[in-house]
Amino acid sequence: MAVDRKVLITECKDNKGLVAKVTNVCFQSGLNIIKNSEYVDNINGEFFMRTELEGDFSGIDLLKDLALALPENSRHRLVNKGKKKLLVLVTKEAHCLGELLIKSHYGALDAEIVAVVGNHPDLEELAQKFQLPFHFITHQDLNRQQHEQEILECLAGYAFDYIVLAKYMRVLSESFIAQYSNKIINIHHSFLPAFIGAKPYHQAYERGVKIIGATAHFVTNDLDDGPIITQDVVSVDHSHSPEDMAKSGREVEESVLTGALRKVIEEKVIVYGNRTVVFD
Amino acid sequence: MAVDRKVLITECKDNKGLVAKVTNVCFQSGLNIIKNSEYVDNINGEFFMRTELEGDFSGIDLLKDLALALPENSRHRLVNKGKKKLLVLVTKEAHCLGELLIKSHYGALDAEIVAVVGNHPDLEELAQKFQLPFHFITHQDLNRQQHEQEILECLAGYAFDYIVLAKYMRVLSESFIAQYSNKIINIHHSFLPAFIGAKPYHQAYERGVKIIGATAHFVTNDLDDGPIITQDVVSVDHSHSPEDMAKSGREVEESVLTGALRKVIEEKVIVYGNRTVVFD
Amino acid sequence: MAVDRKVLITECKDNKGLVAKVTNVCFQSGLNIIKNSEYVDNINGEFFMRTELEGDFSGIDLLKDLALALPENSRHRLVNKGKKKLLVLVTKEAHCLGELLIKSHYGALDAEIVAVVGNHPDLEELAQKFQLPFHFITHQDLNRQQHEQEILECLAGYAFDYIVLAKYMRVLSESFIAQYSNKIINIHHSFLPAFIGAKPYHQAYERGVKIIGATAHFVTNDLDDGPIITQDVVSVDHSHSPEDMAKSGREVEESVLTGALRKVIEEKVIVYGNRTVVFD
Amino acid sequence: MAVDRKVLITECKDNKGLVAKVTNVCFQSGLNIIKNSEYVDNINGEFFMRTELEGDFSGIDLLKDLALALPENSRHRLVNKGKKKLLVLVTKEAHCLGELLIKSHYGALDAEIVAVVGNHPDLEELAQKFQLPFHFITHQDLNRQQHEQEILECLAGYAFDYIVLAKYMRVLSESFIAQYSNKIINIHHSFLPAFIGAKPYHQAYERGVKIIGATAHFVTNDLDDGPIITQDVVSVDHSHSPEDMAKSGREVEESVLTGALRKVIEEKVIVYGNRTVVFD
Repeated sequence: MAVDRKVLITECKDNKGLVAKVTNVCFQSGLNIIKNSEYVDNINGEFFMRTELEGDFSGIDLLKDLALALPENSRHRLVNKGKKKLLVLVTKEAHCLGELLIKSHYGALDAEIVAVVGNHPDLEELAQKFQLPFHFITHQDLNRQQHEQEILECLAGYAFDYIVLAKYMRVLSESFIAQYSNKIINIHHSFLPAFIGAKPYHQAYERGVKIIGATAHFVTNDLDDGPIITQDVVSVDHSHSPEDMAKSGREVEESVLTGALRKVIEEKVIVYGNRTVVFD
Repeated sequence: MAVDRKVLITECKDNKGLVAKVTNVCFQSGLNIIKNSEYVDNINGEFFMRTELEGDFSGIDLLKDLALALPENSRHRLVNKGKKKLLVLVTKEAHCLGELLIKSHYGALDAEIVAVVGNHPDLEELAQKFQLPFHFITHQDLNRQQHEQEILECLAGYAFDYIVLAKYMRVLSESFIAQYSNKIINIHHSFLPAFIGAKPYHQAYERGVKIIGATAHFVTNDLDDGPIITQDVVSVDHSHSPEDMAKSGREVEESVLTGALRKVIEEKVIVYGNRTVVFD
Repeated sequence: MAVDRKVLITECKDNKGLVAKVTNVCFQSGLNIIKNSEYVDNINGEFFMRTELEGDFSGIDLLKDLALALPENSRHRLVNKGKKKLLVLVTKEAHCLGELLIKSHYGALDAEIVAVVGNHPDLEELAQKFQLPFHFITHQDLNRQQHEQEILECLAGYAFDYIVLAKYMRVLSESFIAQYSNKIINIHHSFLPAFIGAKPYHQAYERGVKIIGATAHFVTNDLDDGPIITQDVVSVDHSHSPEDMAKSGREVEESVLTGALRKVIEEKVIVYGNRTVVFD
Repeated sequence: MAVDRKVLITECKDNKGLVAKVTNVCFQSGLNIIKNSEYVDNINGEFFMRTELEGDFSGIDLLKDLALALPENSRHRLVNKGKKKLLVLVTKEAHCLGELLIKSHYGALDAEIVAVVGNHPDLEELAQKFQLPFHFITHQDLNRQQHEQEILECLAGYAFDYIVLAKYMRVLSESFIAQYSNKIINIHHSFLPAFIGAKPYHQAYERGVKIIGATAHFVTNDLDDGPIITQDVVSVDHSHSPEDMAKSGREVEESVLTGALRKVIEEKVIVYGNRTVVFD
C-alpha cells in the first residue's frame, strides 16, 4: 500500500453539514485526516476548507465521490503536499534572491529554484554560486511587449509552479499576468496600501512614519493591489534616513516573502476575490 | 424555536474518522457548525476538537448521541458560550485589577466581576468605583490555613466560574487549589520558566536580559509551574533598572492576563497534562 | 539648596562643538546631566538635543548663558519634568478614555485629567466614577463654528497642558486647532498614511490586509496628516470581520495613545516640520 | 586632510561634567561629533559614553588629551568604524552560517568571514560556495584539550576580530575562552536564562511554553551565562512539536545573531561585568 499525503481544498456556498459531508467521504475512502481547517465568510456566505489527508489514494476517486456527496456549486482540488518549483525574476537587489537561495539550499524553504531571470546582470554571480541557470534579459532598446516576449520564451524552457518577483523592479503587463493567474508572487517594500508605487521608503521618510513594512501578494493587473498573503512591519524612528529605512526594510522583505512562499507551498492559501484565506 | 450557541469540546484517543463522526452527529441533530477547530497530538496520540454550534438544542441530547457514535474513551463537554463570572484576588498592585474592571465595564472582556478579595485594603477604593464588593481579609496574625479558611468562607457567598489572581502575592495551599482545579488563573511577571518565584524583575536585571515578559497560567501545586495559557514579552535594555522593568512589565502583565481570560471565557482552552491546547 | 529636575531642549542649525558648548554651560552652572540625547538631521542640517538636568536652578539663568555661548539661531527651552494636565475630548467609545482614567488613577500615566468633554453623553458615567467633571456639549442643531465656540468656552474654565482626542469623532476647524498649536493629540485607528479618514477598519477589511494599526499624532489642519508620535500594529487574518478588526484595533489604540502621551509628558518629543523627534 | 570616522568609548566612575569634558576635548581637537550616546548606571555609579567622531585624526593624540582632561580612573578606547573580520565555528546546522555568508556577501553585514572551522564536515560545501577556507577538525578520538589545541593552531593562521559560534555544539574550555576574552560570540537557542544547556526546544515543549527565543551572548566560563547582547522570541502554540519549535527557532537564531554582530561591529556594545551596554 502506497501511503501519500495530499491536501484537499473545498470551496462552496456555506451550508449546513459541509464539514460532516466532506470528512465523511474522506473517512469512507479510508483516508486519515491529519489536519482540518475551515473558514466561513459569514458576510458573503462562502465556505472554505483545507483537509490534509494521509492514506492510499490509488484505488479511489475522491473528487468524484465528493462531487456526488456535496452541493453542485462546490469546488474541490486535491494537490500533492511537498516541494514546489520556483522561477525567480530579479533586477539588482540581492537580499530576497539570497534568502531564497540559501533557505532552499538547506531545506528551510521546501522549494527548488529552477532558474533566475534578471533584467540586469548583477545577480548572475550569486545564482551561479548555487549552480543555477541565470538568464540576463535586458529591457534596453526594447519596448515592454518585446521584453516580456523574451522573458516568456525563456520561461517556456522551464517547468515551475510559481514565479517569484524577488525585487523585480519592472511592472508586468496585463497580458503577461493573465498567463500566470495567481501564480506570480511579489514582495512590495511597504505595508500596503500605504506607499503604493515607487520609492516607498522615501515616501515613508517624508511622512515621518514610525513603522515601515513589507507585503507579499499575488500579482494582478492593478499595481500593488493584488491579494495580500502576508505582511509585517519593523519600527523606525526620526534618526532613520530613507536609506536606513531601506536597510531595515530589507530584512522584513526577506522574512515576509519567505513566510508567504511557505504558506503557498504548503497549499494553505486560497485566493478569493481580492483577498486570501491563509490557514495555519 | 430557540436558537442557542454552544461549544462542544471533544477529547479522546486519536482514531480515524473522528471529525466525520462528531460533525455527523451535529449535522443529524440539525445544528450548524459555526467554527470547528481540531488538534491531534501525534506524539501522544490524543485528539482534541472544539466545535462551535448554533441551533435549537431543546429537543436533542447531543452528548448521548455522541457517546453512542464515538469510541468509549471519548470525553465530551457542551458549554454555553458567553459571559463568565470572575472572582478576583489581589494584594496591593492596581494595574491588573484596573484592567479587568475597566475592560469588563465597557465590554472588552466578556466577564462579570462578582467580588474582589484583598489581603491588603489598598484596592478597596478602586473596586468601589465600579460598585463591587471588596473583602479585606488580612493574613496578619493568621497561619496560612486560617487565612485561606476565611477566604473560602467569603468565596462561598458567591457564584463564579473562575478565580483570578490579579497580582495576589501569596502562595495558595495544596488543599485550596484542589477545591478549584483548573479554575484558578494566575498572572506571573516573567516569561516562565525563567525567573520562577519572587522578584523576577530583580533576577532579570541581575542577569542582564534584553527581554522581559509575563505568563498567565492555571494554578497547580507546583509554584509557577501550572499549565501555561498565554505569554508575551517586551524589550528592555541596559538602561532599565529593576523598577523600570517592573513598569514595562506591568503593561505586558495586563495584556497577557486579559488575553488569557478571553481565551478561557470563549471556551478555547483545554488543559491537558501540564499543557494547554488554545484554539484560535 | 533646592534640587530640581528639568529638561533642556536645544534646537539649532548643526555646527561643530554644539554638544560641548551646551554641556559646558550646564557644567559651569553646577548642574548634573542625568541623561543627554541628541540627534542630527544630516539631510537638513538641523541639530536637536534633550538634556535632563538635576541641580539648583535658583541662582542661575541657564537660558541666558546658553544664548551667549551658542550661535544666534539656536533655540532653547527649559521645562519642568513631571505630571501634566490633560483635557480629554470624547464621543461614544469608552476604551481610550477608560485607559487614560485608570492609568492616571494608579500612576502608570503621569497625568492629571482635569475634565472630559463629550459631544455625546455616553461616557459621563465613566468620568464620574473617577470624580471628574464631564461636559456634554452636543453638536446637534449647531454648525461647526457654534459647537466649537461652546467647547472653547468650556475649555476656558480649565488649565491644561494638552488636549487629548480620545476617539473624538469630529473634525476640528482650522481656527480651533490654531489656538492649540502642537497641543492637541489625536489617536487615529489605522497605521497612517494607510486608511485616512472614516471607517479605516472597513477599508482594511475590503483591502484584505493582514495587519492593522493605530497612530498617535499632533493635530494640524490636514486631516490625519499631522506629525506622528507613535504607531503600532497588530496582526489580523481572513477570519476578521471589520468588527473583529475594530475589537483588535482598540487595544492597539489604547497602548499607542498611552505610549505617545508618556513621551510627550516626559518632554521627549520635538515637533519639527511635519515630523517628530522622539527621544528614548 | 584625511577625514576618518572613529568611535571613542569612555568608561569611568560617574561624575559631574563628564559629557562636557569629553566633548570639549573632541571639539578642541577639531573633530565633529556625528553621534553621541551616553548611559549612567545610577545603581553602581558608572558612566559609559560612545562618541562617533569625524575629522582629521592625523596630527592629534586624542587619548592623551582625554587622559589629561578627565579623572584618573577613566578608560578610553578609540577604534576604527568599519568592516570586521570573523572566524566562524560550526558543527552541522547550516542556517546561521548560511545567514552570515549571504549577508556579508551582499553587504547587509559589514563583515569579512576569513574562515570556517567545523568539527563535522557537513558545511564544507556551503563555505566553498563562497570561496572560503573550511577546516574540518574532528573531535573524534581526541580529548577536549587536544581538539581545542588543533583548533587553536588553525586559528593562529588567521587574523580576525571575533570568533562566532554559529551553532557550534561543543562546550569550550576555560583556557580556550581565556585567550579570546569578550571576543567569542555564541548564539543560544533559547531566551536565556530559560532552558540552559542541551535540547532547549525539547525542554520548551515539555513545559508547554507559548514563546520560544534565542540569545546572542559573549562566551564566558559559565555555560550559557555570559553577557547577553541581543534576544528575541517567536510565538508557538500547542501544535508545535519540538521539531516545529526548532524550525521556528532557527529564524530567530539567525536574526538575533546577525543583529548582535551588527551592534558589535559598529562598536556599540560595551561589556560590563556580566552585562552589556548596547547603544542605539
